[in-house]
Amino acid sequence: MKQYPRPLARLINEISKLPGIGNKSAQRLAFHIIDLEEEEVKKLTEALLSAKKELKYCSVCGDLTEGDPCSICSNSQRRQDVICVVESPKDVMAMERTKAFDGLYHVLHGVIAPLEGVGPEDINLKSLIKRLQENDVNEVIIATNPNIEGEATAMYIGRLLKPSGIKVTKLAHGLPVGGDLEYADEVTLLKSLEGRSSL
Amino acid sequence: MKQYPRPLARLINEISKLPGIGNKSAQRLAFHIIDLEEEEVKKLTEALLSAKKELKYCSVCGDLTEGDPCSICSNSQRRQDVICVVESPKDVMAMERTKAFDGLYHVLHGVIAPLEGVGPEDINLKSLIKRLQENDVNEVIIATNPNIEGEATAMYIGRLLKPSGIKVTKLAHGLPVGGDLEYADEVTLLKSLEGRSSL
Repeated sequence: MKQYPRPLARLINEISKLPGIGNKSAQRLAFHIIDLEEEEVKKLTEALLSAKKELKYCSVCGDLTEGDPCSICSNSQRRQDVICVVESPKDVMAMERTKAFDGLYHVLHGVIAPLEGVGPEDINLKSLIKRLQENDVNEVIIATNPNIEGEATAMYIGRLLKPSGIKVTKLAHGLPVGGDLEYADEVTLLKSLEGRSSL
Repeated sequence: MKQYPRPLARLINEISKLPGIGNKSAQRLAFHIIDLEEEEVKKLTEALLSAKKELKYCSVCGDLTEGDPCSICSNSQRRQDVICVVESPKDVMAMERTKAFDGLYHVLHGVIAPLEGVGPEDINLKSLIKRLQENDVNEVIIATNPNIEGEATAMYIGRLLKPSGIKVTKLAHGLPVGGDLEYADEVTLLKSLEGRSSL
């Protein structure tokens, strides 16, 4: 049987490894890419490589950044005594879009999910404890996603920080339950920030 | 307002230029890529570049190929007197999967679509006429997609070839109307090949 020419088969194979892209989509994208100008393909590959090379995680908060520490951690204009804990860098962006929070962040890079074998030691939690010990923090706002794992992680962190006496709050359930923080619109997210409750 | 770090914003921008990928999907893919091993990202970019560099269109039939002429055009075991006209290289693959056609192909790279400003001179049609003049072809099977543009293109080619006396057929409407040839299953496509009718 006729096979696709090798470079095409290889490209389809590489593209179909990406999340949410099946074989048919990978084919469609591959054919699109072959029809692009070489210049365009180069721009895409350079963007891929430079994103991979130039981006790192902030050694303080764990957010994606070019410089270390990141622009938020190194901004002395922001409140240094409130830390908002989120699951991913996307969620930092979502919070920033509300323009209602001017404290610092801490990115967990995941949530506690025992069924998937992800425990508290597998997320960026140890460095949060360290930050709280070394800095004068008055409030930790937990902004994990409003689903089972997110809520469980919020509960866990709440219990973990109880002895420290630091005020721990979480976002109000203005967020649609079962949803994804990054897809929330600014107003909903703002409401949930205003209505945050003690944990 | 906080922006994504530049390399990330650039990557998201490049990815969202791809067809069928909106901004949210582009973000999701970009974050996935940043989390990949550098080795993996290199494999992807190399596949992109080599597909673009090593693939060309066959100077005879217009199919995608590494060598020129392509493996089908240069295969003397195949019937040289039947040419199947398709819209895209994907459709060559679809036809080959039926294992019921052993003639040659001609890839139009598009269809006549006056509303989009695509006329007969904008698709790979002139070289088909030349092939028919220079070779002894007994039948042209038109296998354009069973939608309005595809049917119109089939009609157009049928009328164009009428004076030549060459038998022109098109695939039977076993194909679901309004569908896409590349998504047809082998059996449907086989049936439509068997039931092809004179144009």
